[in-house]
Amino acid sequence: MANLKMTTPPKGWNSWDVYGASVTESEVKENAAYMAENLLSHGWEYVVVDIQWYEPTADSSHYHAFAELKMDEYGRLLPAENRFPSAVNGVGFKNLSDYVHSLGLKFGIHIMRGIPRQAVHLNVPIAGTNLRARDIAHANSICPWNTDMYGIDMGKEGAQAYYDSIFKLYAEWGVDFIKVDDIADSKLYSTHLEEIKAIRKAIDKTGRDMVLSLSPGPAPLKYGTFFQEYANMWRLTDDFWDNWEQLKDMFTRCAQWSPFVGPGSWPDCDMLPLGHIGIRSVDGGGADRLTRFTKAEQRTMMTLWSIFRSPLMLGCELTDLDDWTLHLLREPTLKIMHQEGRNARQIHNEDDWVVWQTEANATVYYVIFNLSDTERVTPTEIVALAKLKNSETLVAHDCLVSY
Amino acid sequence: MANLKMTTPPKGWNSWDVYGASVTESEVKENAAYMAENLLSHGWEYVVVDIQWYEPTADSSHYHAFAELKMDEYGRLLPAENRFPSAVNGVGFKNLSDYVHSLGLKFGIHIMRGIPRQAVHLNVPIAGTNLRARDIAHANSICPWNTDMYGIDMGKEGAQAYYDSIFKLYAEWGVDFIKVDDIADSKLYSTHLEEIKAIRKAIDKTGRDMVLSLSPGPAPLKYGTFFQEYANMWRLTDDFWDNWEQLKDMFTRCAQWSPFVGPGSWPDCDMLPLGHIGIRSVDGGGADRLTRFTKAEQRTMMTLWSIFRSPLMLGCELTDLDDWTLHLLREPTLKIMHQEGRNARQIHNEDDWVVWQTEANATVYYVIFNLSDTERVTPTEIVALAKLKNSETLVAHDCLVSY
Amino acid sequence: MANLKMTTPPKGWNSWDVYGASVTESEVKENAAYMAENLLSHGWEYVVVDIQWYEPTADSSHYHAFAELKMDEYGRLLPAENRFPSAVNGVGFKNLSDYVHSLGLKFGIHIMRGIPRQAVHLNVPIAGTNLRARDIAHANSICPWNTDMYGIDMGKEGAQAYYDSIFKLYAEWGVDFIKVDDIADSKLYSTHLEEIKAIRKAIDKTGRDMVLSLSPGPAPLKYGTFFQEYANMWRLTDDFWDNWEQLKDMFTRCAQWSPFVGPGSWPDCDMLPLGHIGIRSVDGGGADRLTRFTKAEQRTMMTLWSIFRSPLMLGCELTDLDDWTLHLLREPTLKIMHQEGRNARQIHNEDDWVVWQTEANATVYYVIFNLSDTERVTPTEIVALAKLKNSETLVAHDCLVSY
Amino acid sequence: MANLKMTTPPKGWNSWDVYGASVTESEVKENAAYMAENLLSHGWEYVVVDIQWYEPTADSSHYHAFAELKMDEYGRLLPAENRFPSAVNGVGFKNLSDYVHSLGLKFGIHIMRGIPRQAVHLNVPIAGTNLRARDIAHANSICPWNTDMYGIDMGKEGAQAYYDSIFKLYAEWGVDFIKVDDIADSKLYSTHLEEIKAIRKAIDKTGRDMVLSLSPGPAPLKYGTFFQEYANMWRLTDDFWDNWEQLKDMFTRCAQWSPFVGPGSWPDCDMLPLGHIGIRSVDGGGADRLTRFTKAEQRTMMTLWSIFRSPLMLGCELTDLDDWTLHLLREPTLKIMHQEGRNARQIHNEDDWVVWQTEANATVYYVIFNLSDTERVTPTEIVALAKLKNSETLVAHDCLVSY
Repeated sequence: MANLKMTTPPKGWNSWDVYGASVTESEVKENAAYMAENLLSHGWEYVVVDIQWYEPTADSSHYHAFAELKMDEYGRLLPAENRFPSAVNGVGFKNLSDYVHSLGLKFGIHIMRGIPRQAVHLNVPIAGTNLRARDIAHANSICPWNTDMYGIDMGKEGAQAYYDSIFKLYAEWGVDFIKVDDIADSKLYSTHLEEIKAIRKAIDKTGRDMVLSLSPGPAPLKYGTFFQEYANMWRLTDDFWDNWEQLKDMFTRCAQWSPFVGPGSWPDCDMLPLGHIGIRSVDGGGADRLTRFTKAEQRTMMTLWSIFRSPLMLGCELTDLDDWTLHLLREPTLKIMHQEGRNARQIHNEDDWVVWQTEANATVYYVIFNLSDTERVTPTEIVALAKLKNSETLVAHDCLVSY
Repeated sequence: MANLKMTTPPKGWNSWDVYGASVTESEVKENAAYMAENLLSHGWEYVVVDIQWYEPTADSSHYHAFAELKMDEYGRLLPAENRFPSAVNGVGFKNLSDYVHSLGLKFGIHIMRGIPRQAVHLNVPIAGTNLRARDIAHANSICPWNTDMYGIDMGKEGAQAYYDSIFKLYAEWGVDFIKVDDIADSKLYSTHLEEIKAIRKAIDKTGRDMVLSLSPGPAPLKYGTFFQEYANMWRLTDDFWDNWEQLKDMFTRCAQWSPFVGPGSWPDCDMLPLGHIGIRSVDGGGADRLTRFTKAEQRTMMTLWSIFRSPLMLGCELTDLDDWTLHLLREPTLKIMHQEGRNARQIHNEDDWVVWQTEANATVYYVIFNLSDTERVTPTEIVALAKLKNSETLVAHDCLVSY
Repeated sequence: MANLKMTTPPKGWNSWDVYGASVTESEVKENAAYMAENLLSHGWEYVVVDIQWYEPTADSSHYHAFAELKMDEYGRLLPAENRFPSAVNGVGFKNLSDYVHSLGLKFGIHIMRGIPRQAVHLNVPIAGTNLRARDIAHANSICPWNTDMYGIDMGKEGAQAYYDSIFKLYAEWGVDFIKVDDIADSKLYSTHLEEIKAIRKAIDKTGRDMVLSLSPGPAPLKYGTFFQEYANMWRLTDDFWDNWEQLKDMFTRCAQWSPFVGPGSWPDCDMLPLGHIGIRSVDGGGADRLTRFTKAEQRTMMTLWSIFRSPLMLGCELTDLDDWTLHLLREPTLKIMHQEGRNARQIHNEDDWVVWQTEANATVYYVIFNLSDTERVTPTEIVALAKLKNSETLVAHDCLVSY
Repeated sequence: MANLKMTTPPKGWNSWDVYGASVTESEVKENAAYMAENLLSHGWEYVVVDIQWYEPTADSSHYHAFAELKMDEYGRLLPAENRFPSAVNGVGFKNLSDYVHSLGLKFGIHIMRGIPRQAVHLNVPIAGTNLRARDIAHANSICPWNTDMYGIDMGKEGAQAYYDSIFKLYAEWGVDFIKVDDIADSKLYSTHLEEIKAIRKAIDKTGRDMVLSLSPGPAPLKYGTFFQEYANMWRLTDDFWDNWEQLKDMFTRCAQWSPFVGPGSWPDCDMLPLGHIGIRSVDGGGADRLTRFTKAEQRTMMTLWSIFRSPLMLGCELTDLDDWTLHLLREPTLKIMHQEGRNARQIHNEDDWVVWQTEANATVYYVIFNLSDTERVTPTEIVALAKLKNSETLVAHDCLVSY
């Protein structure tokens, strides 16, 4: 298993669903403050700045191809100061991280696998070596959806040194959570096993605990134990958004991955598109909106993520959170299943009735999901299987917890 | 998980590797007697009659296409009486099963998925119904390597009734272990999920405990939790024989499947081609022979199967067993890892050095495998990882246990 | 190229689209009589009895699994006499064939690849040999959608003899056209190359000219020259029916296959679902109906089939033919392109405008197809490319010939 | 068909097999001079400078990742002047081309699909537009084996203008033959259809005849008619070298592609690794050497390429050519089949005997190939098929022409 033995799956907030690549320092701070005040007591603690914090002109989830990136002399990306003013004088995220920590929270950032193409074309030196960017860049490894980086050829001298050099920086900044993208399932090259190993090694060298989260999915099941050994979280699907087809599909994935869930090993259903999202994002068929999920679907999502023990990362603008959603995020039964559950697994799947079971707190919990598009009465076999007293009625896409 | 909660993986003997499709009653009894006397005390207890016990002319591992099969009036296969004399008067395996049980052992048989083609072309009635074989046979589902059966179309009325009718018979015979073939990975149609469910249901209806073993492999990893729910064992590969390439390949499979191992859920590395095998088998590049595995390879196989907790099914003629092999089958450390191990997993795989770890008996056990083709000294990192005191030397394909 | 050097693609009628597997002798004769009177003068001459003429209970396009088939003592299928009364006394199709020939037409039948399963389970002798059906049946080769036959293992002695024995019969019956099914693209086993070679050889031995037509499709392009060498027609798609999506898709196939068209080599777009079809067929989303194609779509189909030089086989009940359709089948420009065209090929495909060109009669013919779902004016570049004088307007799915 | 109606397949010389990416002007001139004197009279006329003539440090077939390229202010690559001294003052290949033309020969160059990465990172202007390199570069399209270029996104304004700008230059230089690489089969993205169309359009706009050759292979058969419409040559395989396995495999490819051969449409078996090759190339298991092909194999290659009508491009240093090889290149029967053949096709392929047939000069030519590894007597059926008078004996990998 990966070095960090997190006994419970991480919970927190990530800037992607609401701000795409364009979040600013003040927005991060406001969301962090809200979380500290309203959610920390219920276990929500990570604040994660998603992709392209080093891109000064980022303004949505749409990337500017070949944009100039903020970078130091060793090809290490730095926060764009126009967006993160506290990053002046090359201190990076240190000040923002200190602020987040001062609230009792933990701080995370997103990176892309590899080294900036800009560093390679400038052929900058690799910190602590006599080598240069062109010596380690993988000539023919790119991300298929973003132009920032080249992959790194781990067979080359200096390759590990570059990853070491960036993680040294992140440790100095006080980073607690690192989300690495274009690595768990590259659409061009499958999974980048060697770069994952290198990142693991680089983190371990820092001596600092950092949650290692790998994106995007679907991470291949055949590498399940590999991910357990080297990472803490890995995505089960491509980006998840607020539509029912994706939510329904997640049931199949969770059923397949349930044996891999345990301390430090958290297969990841992706961010929760609840509340107010899409403020500066055009992904997910998106626009500035309240989640398109019905309340039943929101309950279903939160319940599946909880019983399966997925990481829970909020995708919305927290300062706009409504009471109903806040209540859902604090729901105590979901929290018990999520934080204390053992041996969770699907025990029934027939005719759009799905039943999951978990053991927590010396109790067996059951969840019944009505995945059909109509309101239905729970059939006798489900009543028996889930130890219900009566045949309950469930509206479309809703669920029911019993124990 | 499947109904039968076996707390330890099954151990026993199977007739395939040595007699192909042609084993006789007296051979089964002699092997059973040997097992009762020499191996039962070390946990070996299942005696399994493999494929085509209903085929009177079977004489090796090569099938006679379209041969006439011994069958009752309801299309249920019966033991060929020329090969199993105690099966006279339609009592099936009852007498042989009684004998095996009298030795303190358990009795198993092999079947093919489906209904005999012979029953379909004769259009026999399905026991307990007004239906006939043609009503339930799947018109276009065959086994790609044997002509005995058609698959059953589980969408048809009477389909479950046929499976119920054969398992009723097996329960009456006293069957404790059922190996179902052409079902976990059909080379033509992938996994037969619906027929697996039907067999599970038919077993449960009998009220008798039967280990459910599914063949052949590779069973798809994506159905891993499905297999856990409906079966007890399922094969990781196609037929395993005494050659190093297959043994080496098994390491990858075990590493992928380790999270699925636990009570009643035993991913299966297949029979152990040790000792005297191939007496009437032409499979596996075979002939009447002593295993082609070196002693180091035999140790490696037994150790991988044990730490991974695969079922252990002997493939050889037991009455010919030599002392060295007998000793290996009684090895106490292997037995501890196999019967009591928890959280077994590969923790290192680099440069043909593989290390596994398991927890048993309040101790952590390590196994170091030298998968290379040369004798080598264990590297420092392996010494550290496996808590060795010194750098041991391992010959090619050998292994070392430490704790 | 295959032995038969047909200088023009075959034209005729086939019973499948209208009667499924159930056509009767009187229906065949009525359609033949109509063709002789109304279409023969325009080149339509083949009358083909499609699948399962040997199945007494056939009543639609839905097959009766494992039905008893009419068969001689050598496992050769014979016409079911309840459906084909002139087949009494074992004369097979001789009398029907004589009738068709008396009208100046040619006679064809459909067969499935292989030997009847019924012959194998009875183990009948192979005519002219000391061998039996089980000696040549391919143990594990079936059709995935029909239970009549087993494939034949061409590596076995007697395999060619069986194919020789059935084609000898067909030659005696006076068969001019043979459509062999489950052979060009088996959904289970790809293309059956060896059985195609054996059928070619069996036809050649008879000394009789027979068009060899292979089904179903899509025949793989990589075997294009193989089909040219051994057959005369092979299908480009699975069964074609009266819906626009399939018709639109045929354009891509024709564009790919155009270099393979020439004397004796006719890539086949399948039967024409014009007029009154589906009388006893439930395929193609079907029912007793007039074709669902609009008039524009019918023109488009006939024009594509003609310029591409596909075989033209009518699928409808001819005695119900309306004047508009009859006129279309006699259209002289289509006939010129179809019978005399050379170097036909797609020369433009952009924005749902497709243009084809062929050379016939010292003239270059162009066809413009509007594959979009709306009425549109031909763009300037199309006007120029197709040597039009003006910008014509085409309704959705229509076409225009110019020269 | 592509605009250029070449009635015979091109013949000439290409620098790759002997000099990799590193050929110099003087080497090109020496080879051209030899060709003019010794081979032009036998139809050999193209002189092609292969990949990376714009890379000053190129020294073998191994590319220098991210090397600086010689480029003009519009991102158009120019010959490296240290290697091509006549390219001074921005005149490009004009002087070298003039020299080649003065010998009565034709001049060709190689390019990679796309726009230099260097141009994109510098964001140079696109000639004749207000746009810049970043506006048209395809953000996520690279060559998997060379770092020079990004693909071009043909959906962007300015994309066609860039291709127009480079072909305008090539026309000014007097280029007669253009080999475009990373386009017919990208290992990452299959075939780049839109960029092929754009290049066709750019060539046509110049008004100059240029042979358009697409690499590498295998070009997909399903795009066969697309290639016919837009190009003149396209590769059937990845790089071809002097080993028997590749040569034997080419027979299958030629058999599949034979219907596509005709005026202006030349499926391409790749360069001929005859004579002295590998002087500065490390590809093909290579080193400075005489071809590893036996004389029989060289005959077989030349004969297959000729009867199939592949382009014939010599790969060797011509000034080192021996008499035996020179004789082979001037062989009159091969020349007749190559320049005048019609309807060439494989007519037999069984047991490693392959027979091809072509029609030329009112004669039918046959070629018998012994693809087995032993000397064998031609079987009776081959003797008959190829109209031989006697049963000839052929050594391994040899061939025999008859007519």
